[in-house]
Amino acid sequence: MSRPSGRKSEEARTVSITRDYTMHAEGSVLIEIGNTKVLCTASVEDTVPGFLRGKGQGWITAEYGMLPRSTHTRTAREAAKGKQSGRTQEIQRLIGRSLRAITDLKALGERQVTLDCDVLQADGGTRCASITGACVALHDAMNKLVAAGKLPASPLKDFVAAVSVGIVEGVPVLDLDYAEDSSCDTDMNVVMTGSGGIVEVQGTAEGEPFSRGELDALLALAQAGIADLVTKQKAALK
Amino acid sequence: MSRPSGRKSEEARTVSITRDYTMHAEGSVLIEIGNTKVLCTASVEDTVPGFLRGKGQGWITAEYGMLPRSTHTRTAREAAKGKQSGRTQEIQRLIGRSLRAITDLKALGERQVTLDCDVLQADGGTRCASITGACVALHDAMNKLVAAGKLPASPLKDFVAAVSVGIVEGVPVLDLDYAEDSSCDTDMNVVMTGSGGIVEVQGTAEGEPFSRGELDALLALAQAGIADLVTKQKAALK
Amino acid sequence: MSRPSGRKSEEARTVSITRDYTMHAEGSVLIEIGNTKVLCTASVEDTVPGFLRGKGQGWITAEYGMLPRSTHTRTAREAAKGKQSGRTQEIQRLIGRSLRAITDLKALGERQVTLDCDVLQADGGTRCASITGACVALHDAMNKLVAAGKLPASPLKDFVAAVSVGIVEGVPVLDLDYAEDSSCDTDMNVVMTGSGGIVEVQGTAEGEPFSRGELDALLALAQAGIADLVTKQKAALK
Amino acid sequence: MSRPSGRKSEEARTVSITRDYTMHAEGSVLIEIGNTKVLCTASVEDTVPGFLRGKGQGWITAEYGMLPRSTHTRTAREAAKGKQSGRTQEIQRLIGRSLRAITDLKALGERQVTLDCDVLQADGGTRCASITGACVALHDAMNKLVAAGKLPASPLKDFVAAVSVGIVEGVPVLDLDYAEDSSCDTDMNVVMTGSGGIVEVQGTAEGEPFSRGELDALLALAQAGIADLVTKQKAALK
Amino acid sequence: MSRPSGRKSEEARTVSITRDYTMHAEGSVLIEIGNTKVLCTASVEDTVPGFLRGKGQGWITAEYGMLPRSTHTRTAREAAKGKQSGRTQEIQRLIGRSLRAITDLKALGERQVTLDCDVLQADGGTRCASITGACVALHDAMNKLVAAGKLPASPLKDFVAAVSVGIVEGVPVLDLDYAEDSSCDTDMNVVMTGSGGIVEVQGTAEGEPFSRGELDALLALAQAGIADLVTKQKAALK
Amino acid sequence: MSRPSGRKSEEARTVSITRDYTMHAEGSVLIEIGNTKVLCTASVEDTVPGFLRGKGQGWITAEYGMLPRSTHTRTAREAAKGKQSGRTQEIQRLIGRSLRAITDLKALGERQVTLDCDVLQADGGTRCASITGACVALHDAMNKLVAAGKLPASPLKDFVAAVSVGIVEGVPVLDLDYAEDSSCDTDMNVVMTGSGGIVEVQGTAEGEPFSRGELDALLALAQAGIADLVTKQKAALK
Repeated sequence: MSRPSGRKSEEARTVSITRDYTMHAEGSVLIEIGNTKVLCTASVEDTVPGFLRGKGQGWITAEYGMLPRSTHTRTAREAAKGKQSGRTQEIQRLIGRSLRAITDLKALGERQVTLDCDVLQADGGTRCASITGACVALHDAMNKLVAAGKLPASPLKDFVAAVSVGIVEGVPVLDLDYAEDSSCDTDMNVVMTGSGGIVEVQGTAEGEPFSRGELDALLALAQAGIADLVTKQKAALK
Repeated sequence: MSRPSGRKSEEARTVSITRDYTMHAEGSVLIEIGNTKVLCTASVEDTVPGFLRGKGQGWITAEYGMLPRSTHTRTAREAAKGKQSGRTQEIQRLIGRSLRAITDLKALGERQVTLDCDVLQADGGTRCASITGACVALHDAMNKLVAAGKLPASPLKDFVAAVSVGIVEGVPVLDLDYAEDSSCDTDMNVVMTGSGGIVEVQGTAEGEPFSRGELDALLALAQAGIADLVTKQKAALK
Repeated sequence: MSRPSGRKSEEARTVSITRDYTMHAEGSVLIEIGNTKVLCTASVEDTVPGFLRGKGQGWITAEYGMLPRSTHTRTAREAAKGKQSGRTQEIQRLIGRSLRAITDLKALGERQVTLDCDVLQADGGTRCASITGACVALHDAMNKLVAAGKLPASPLKDFVAAVSVGIVEGVPVLDLDYAEDSSCDTDMNVVMTGSGGIVEVQGTAEGEPFSRGELDALLALAQAGIADLVTKQKAALK
Repeated sequence: MSRPSGRKSEEARTVSITRDYTMHAEGSVLIEIGNTKVLCTASVEDTVPGFLRGKGQGWITAEYGMLPRSTHTRTAREAAKGKQSGRTQEIQRLIGRSLRAITDLKALGERQVTLDCDVLQADGGTRCASITGACVALHDAMNKLVAAGKLPASPLKDFVAAVSVGIVEGVPVLDLDYAEDSSCDTDMNVVMTGSGGIVEVQGTAEGEPFSRGELDALLALAQAGIADLVTKQKAALK
Repeated sequence: MSRPSGRKSEEARTVSITRDYTMHAEGSVLIEIGNTKVLCTASVEDTVPGFLRGKGQGWITAEYGMLPRSTHTRTAREAAKGKQSGRTQEIQRLIGRSLRAITDLKALGERQVTLDCDVLQADGGTRCASITGACVALHDAMNKLVAAGKLPASPLKDFVAAVSVGIVEGVPVLDLDYAEDSSCDTDMNVVMTGSGGIVEVQGTAEGEPFSRGELDALLALAQAGIADLVTKQKAALK
Repeated sequence: MSRPSGRKSEEARTVSITRDYTMHAEGSVLIEIGNTKVLCTASVEDTVPGFLRGKGQGWITAEYGMLPRSTHTRTAREAAKGKQSGRTQEIQRLIGRSLRAITDLKALGERQVTLDCDVLQADGGTRCASITGACVALHDAMNKLVAAGKLPASPLKDFVAAVSVGIVEGVPVLDLDYAEDSSCDTDMNVVMTGSGGIVEVQGTAEGEPFSRGELDALLALAQAGIADLVTKQKAALK
């Protein structure tokens, strides 16, 4: 098997993380994973959703969108259609859960941080790029709260990053691009922390079911790939 | 650790599968897993969604709903709110994918089967019960098409069932009920075929991330639980 | 004329009332009228709608739904379509008014009871079955409030039940099933209390207008039918 | 009992029917019943709804609306709220059924007539005024089709009109205005044809249930009131 | 060039302003400009929108609608479609801004006035007729507040009126009717106060762009037309 | 008066036009006007909207959106709210009309071009930046059709650009940024072609009405500003 991109099976795409990409948000990161480009902003508000009012803790939530022409052919704008697709909702719930996993919500205090992940250009792996980029934007926003004296220390306990792995023509590979993603048999998104804990595992057989052995191979690829992403997140924040 | 239900960690709840529960649908199954009760109907229509028109294949889709008072306190009716929640959409997409994994869509011909999974009473594990019950309803509907001479043979290649597993107070347990589900650290839904292939793995750390070893323990529990469910599906169809 | 079911013109279908059909609701009744099956739950909440806040009285409201495959061919799910049809809204308003007619809302106190009537299987007369079943569920819920010491006495002053009558091939008949309902000239739903008061009369000529004499004949049939239903409600609550 | 308006119990309000009130519609009638003013237009289109396509018959449908300040205090605009209320849908379904009852849909041919009933000023009885006014607008529209040679004869077989009756302080009265409507015990809308057939009877006990004798008294009042309205419809069309 | 109506290029249509057209609103004006008829009502409420709460000032807002058969062929009802078109929203925002331009919002106090402009019959220029009629309705409503002793003086500083101008077959003309509006090259709506200040200018080239000289000619026509409308507004309020 | 930015009254902000900013669209332009950044993509589809089918001409339409954190404080996502605001609809209609003004729709053939203008960072003037950037994206898309042999020549007859002007503290100024836009008395958006024709003029008095003399001064500023923008558009396309 040769990958469409010429990459080796355990080879991820080039990653670029640009902080302060836009000027208004407390955290604003453009993450580029190969040709996939996602703008991740972190917005801090001094309020919490109704179900948390008066409980002395904060909340992390996420919203996700694709610009209509981030894709090969134009995708209808969700604002014009009047509702978000099931896929969009699935993704933004996943991003929110992933970021909450590294946050001490009590230490955050009665604040809400919204992570907006907007895909400027899509080439596979947008949800994983969103999580990875949002983590950096969230660190920036929390550091600003500390610098402004609003928090004694960052409520973030760790880093979190995500990568997709899959079985393409029978071979487990790391970091699928669009060409691979749309033709693979099995696709799995893995979210892990910097210290190696698993936050989410979502594996789906698109065609044939996969075996326990294949699952193990995919997890090993993901673990290595995520470790590498966390190194890059830390470098970007230096 | 002792489970709220007194069950052992590898012990699933009692399962009951009642076929022909309602009279109009091509397949109609009431599945009861402990106190969780889901009505799963399979409806066959001689049409396919737009994106498949003229492609000589069929489609399997699913819709999921909870009756407002299937839950401890009343949940607002989605029809009255005017939209389905992200959770609902996530679940019905999962049910659809799981059933498609055992169906030869070409052999189905230009037909659509809709699996409606409506929760009459909820006590945890409704999405897994939905998949397991829908599989039996789908077999019934396909067998009717064969009996009516509309298909030469059933397009179903296998069985599919699902179970939830989780880590409760540090111990991996099988088949979470509501009390466990709402307090556990890690929750995983596993969907497998009768022949042991993995169709979906969705594991989420609600609190602390989980380790690779814990993931392995959960998968082992799920594998045994699903094998048992498939045995019961086959018995019900006898 | 012979009725499709072989029933006599003044003969109603078999009625079955099962209490505590599901476990979470304060009242939960499965009512079966022939092949029509409706699950009626009563949910009590310690709140009232905005227009009654601070007025020292309660409220009774109702919601109605049909499971997608309760019908001969699948009906699109209202939650997926994003709105309730005019028919649904008409029916749930009728159910609410009917139950309020037997309730002393001041004696209920600042509470709201929601009656959810969900059709599991439809064969004509679902709105009448809903009212008749909801009445029993409401009695159960009120009795629980009394038993729990939250109310000194039940705020229900009476029973209420409903039946459809119609003119089929020129003959007035009681309790139309689907085959009759879809082919009759005139269709009337009558709601009455246990003491014989009329709560609602809704008669519609589908084809030819009907005469005053026909109206009288229909009302007489309905009166007898409802008296019988109230007897069965009382028996069920024993 | 004395009525707020000083009318006798069997006395209806003054009726005024103005044809050709607006210039674009095939039929356009302003009906004034006391202070209630409804603009009823009939619009003919050479198309039928999907469920009638190719069946060689036409359709009559209706839509109803209230201008925001037709009422004592401003009512929110349904277009701005994004949905029609249950009350609106109930009323427009009633208007449509009432007009279909006097129409030979086969003789109408593959055409749809939409009756738009928009309340300019409300003082009770708007649904009855809508039906009575829409009948005249529909006659005008059908006569225009005949005059234009598009139909050999009018497909209307009769006239149809509606009136509300009710029990106010124990006394049955004809044609409730807003002050009576909002305080009465029982409210009934009756729709009848010019030849005296009953099309719809919708009686509701707002407070105490009503007796069979009261129902008879209300029907007698309605019958006389409707006969008078039909005389006025015919005079207006002269 | 000869105009379809036979009017001269600088000749406006006949204007009629009827006050107290309906009885419930604080101000209610039927304005007729040629065949265009708009009912403008002003409703005063003792509340302000959220963004103004506690700021010691009032608000003026507007809503606009067309009755379905105000137009040549029937236009779908926005309440039935479930949303207001972009055109409707544009117009109602314009009406609101225009009326706010003559109102001292601080002097109005914490009140909101809603101007509902509903088109009964359309023949071009409905947004301009709406502004011109709403101004009279607003004066009536403010005068009532003064008469009732709720305000020491009217918070209205001036009058405001609007007219459309356009270039038809190369010639600048005043007050376009539908025939001209749908065929003209350039269309401009101008809103001015009684003292000659410009509130809004909205000019659009439908076909060829227009020159600065043409713009000047259109503004001159509009200025004369609006002065005439303000004279008529003042006369109506006498 | 000194402007917040220190610019002279007739001085526009720095303009930067980056072509091919994203890779999938037929035209993709990032336009930066000072701190305002808008991504404008042109998507060509071989279809036309229903009202143009079979008429042998094409269509140009536009959609506009703001990323939630393109603004000082986070703006709710329109896709999540389920509808586009009146402001959004107004702007996208303006963009569409402006681009159609320079396009020979017959020469375009039965194609639709959608211009998506998404604001990445907002600092005033986003609708003008959108028009100016979209013009370049549209030229790129049309040139690609010519290069691919699908059109014999570009159907674009000219360039089009837009600028805002306003009266700030009594002084007419060019190209308002956010600080000026939110505090000015009068705000006007002007759209003109490269050959100096006026396409749109939209002037609004936020506070005091403006005089004819002020209007003339604003138009003169706009004319010079737009001429400069067109020079930059042409340079970018070299």
